[in-house]
Amino acid sequence: MPRLWKDTVDAHRQAVRDATLDAVAHLVTEDGLLSVTMSRVAERAGIGRATLYKYFPDVEAVLTAWHAREMARNLERLTAIAERPGSAAERLEAVLLTYAGISHEHHRGELVALLHRGDHALRAHRELATLIGDLIAEGARDGGLRGDVPPSELAAYCLAALTAATELTSREALRRLVAVVMSGLNGGPAPADPL
Amino acid sequence: MPRLWKDTVDAHRQAVRDATLDAVAHLVTEDGLLSVTMSRVAERAGIGRATLYKYFPDVEAVLTAWHAREMARNLERLTAIAERPGSAAERLEAVLLTYAGISHEHHRGELVALLHRGDHALRAHRELATLIGDLIAEGARDGGLRGDVPPSELAAYCLAALTAATELTSREALRRLVAVVMSGLNGGPAPADPL
Repeated sequence: MPRLWKDTVDAHRQAVRDATLDAVAHLVTEDGLLSVTMSRVAERAGIGRATLYKYFPDVEAVLTAWHAREMARNLERLTAIAERPGSAAERLEAVLLTYAGISHEHHRGELVALLHRGDHALRAHRELATLIGDLIAEGARDGGLRGDVPPSELAAYCLAALTAATELTSREALRRLVAVVMSGLNGGPAPADPL
Repeated sequence: MPRLWKDTVDAHRQAVRDATLDAVAHLVTEDGLLSVTMSRVAERAGIGRATLYKYFPDVEAVLTAWHAREMARNLERLTAIAERPGSAAERLEAVLLTYAGISHEHHRGELVALLHRGDHALRAHRELATLIGDLIAEGARDGGLRGDVPPSELAAYCLAALTAATELTSREALRRLVAVVMSGLNGGPAPADPL
């Protein structure tokens, strides 16, 4: 296949894929995960059902692709927050608050639990743990956060504790949860940095 | 049915039930949850398969009953720890450490996740949250723990954070996790008790 032709085909495929996942996002927001069917996705995306089936074998594949895109976008958003100016502790708090908000908004239920068991979710979870662990390590070095517990363990603690966000009902409660989690990260001595 | 006869029948039923669940406990410990079948349970309990089926319709029912008994026993053990002498903060720390150990030892996998979705697990989770919330409220009153966040939210934070115990590989790491969680509970002011 000539190079230019291939580029055009790739761009077209990406456009169809994007339109399909945008359609899924609309359907999920409007009517929930269970409302998503191949017919509704095709209709909403403005493509034929036959075309949709060329891209995705079934509705599970469509949902998984949509969920993977959502997680990748969340990770980008959190990474951008982690790279803002400010102390490591401040940036970590902003990351945790945003993540708590995302967890809180998440659509609950069996289907989401299934999606979260996929490989893409595991990878995203690991990347997020690394992002948070790196901020904690930085905070331990600059003395703003405890240095007596391995950063990877503290990152796992943060992510586990923030699952409580799904049960909370107000923005204030989310802020309180993040403040409590941050207290856990401040609590110990920072042996690397004797003040 | 005469009273004495009924008592004897009830005692007999309870004995068969106990022997069955003890058999399940042995099989789970020795060969894992997936090894549990009605035939193996009957054989191990020393009862006939027909008898077993009079008590439990299928293996799921046996596993659910065993899991409910496990959770009830864990809750008894945690309640006893909560009632020991000592400050609320000390007793809470002991409860959390024991619970972290239990979570850590737990057999992982799809089947356990399914068992945890049952009504009995939901009830046990609520009772545990109440036990922990009560200790936190007591600690907030005596000034040993933060009083600026509702105890129910702090209890949910504890239980969520301790799910990180399943990923940890050593007793020391469990202790560190509980210490971090406790720091989260100490972090804020205790407005009710101006020292």
